[in-house]
Amino acid sequence: MTPAPLTPERILEATEDVLRRFGPAKATVVDVARALGVSHGSVYRHFGSKAALREAVTQRWLDLSHAELSAVADADGPAGPRLRSWLAALFAAKRRKAGDDPELFATYMVLVGENSATVDRHIETMIGQLARIVESGVRSGEFAGTDPAATARALWDATNRFHDPAYAADWSLPGIDAAFDAVCGLLLRGLQG
Amino acid sequence: MTPAPLTPERILEATEDVLRRFGPAKATVVDVARALGVSHGSVYRHFGSKAALREAVTQRWLDLSHAELSAVADADGPAGPRLRSWLAALFAAKRRKAGDDPELFATYMVLVGENSATVDRHIETMIGQLARIVESGVRSGEFAGTDPAATARALWDATNRFHDPAYAADWSLPGIDAAFDAVCGLLLRGLQG
Repeated sequence: MTPAPLTPERILEATEDVLRRFGPAKATVVDVARALGVSHGSVYRHFGSKAALREAVTQRWLDLSHAELSAVADADGPAGPRLRSWLAALFAAKRRKAGDDPELFATYMVLVGENSATVDRHIETMIGQLARIVESGVRSGEFAGTDPAATARALWDATNRFHDPAYAADWSLPGIDAAFDAVCGLLLRGLQG
Repeated sequence: MTPAPLTPERILEATEDVLRRFGPAKATVVDVARALGVSHGSVYRHFGSKAALREAVTQRWLDLSHAELSAVADADGPAGPRLRSWLAALFAAKRRKAGDDPELFATYMVLVGENSATVDRHIETMIGQLARIVESGVRSGEFAGTDPAATARALWDATNRFHDPAYAADWSLPGIDAAFDAVCGLLLRGLQG
């Protein structure tokens, strides 16, 4: 049997497995290479250092929800419901990540702490999607005309209880959905006002 | 010279000093008693356990800003500017605590983590003050009539970047005041909408 070609994606999948098994403190590039049945030199050909590999796997994890959210941001229809759907989809994706595999989530929290530039880029992408929704609402006359970039940032800040992993413990509280609805309702009225 | 009577307040002040000097991991009731020149039994007469003492000092620290904020919440005048003043006063108080004495702030972050019931009570007090402002705005017709308690909770959640110590590192960022203004503006329009 010819082995499958060693792609960056295969390396990143193996890295996630290794991180899950050994934890972020102990996982090494040699472990990743061993899991793939290749030399560690082969891994280094794709990712120049252990730090680069950890950064790439963090980026991949953060990007997982991008495509889905991007489709919501750029869908047709009125901006208000679209904004609410986007925020709800983000919250649902975060809850899934935190709830389905808490150990892997904790591992990624360590990686996120190590890769703040990657996290900053991710947040800018998220705020960029929010800005597109705000702009389309201003264009259609649904939202009062304000600085869409600043408004998008304010929406991001004002909803952080529902997307910042620092609040992950809150996401299974009984009143959390009502709290989410109350914040969304207030913000949407603010945009329309 | 007759020694000053051993009041709970004097014990709590000494406890804060001891925490500052030895750190939360090492500070003991014996250190507090020694700093006061009394026996540890005298301290235990006021606070039944080390845990009770740590809880009381945490409560005292959280309560420091209550009186000032409570006066803002119950001041005369229109509810909108009052709400903004209250949120600004809270943000200013938090920044002061975090910025003026970062080591003591870090110490209290450890204590806050140990005393979640005390923190929950503090948060309920804060949200109660917000609810009084919202109620007065609904009464005067400034704010649209909604559930003041739920609205107050939404205001608290939506402004957590500006009061939750988890974000303390953000409070010295260059754009933070503009971010605060953008969130406040959006929320105020939402209340009026």
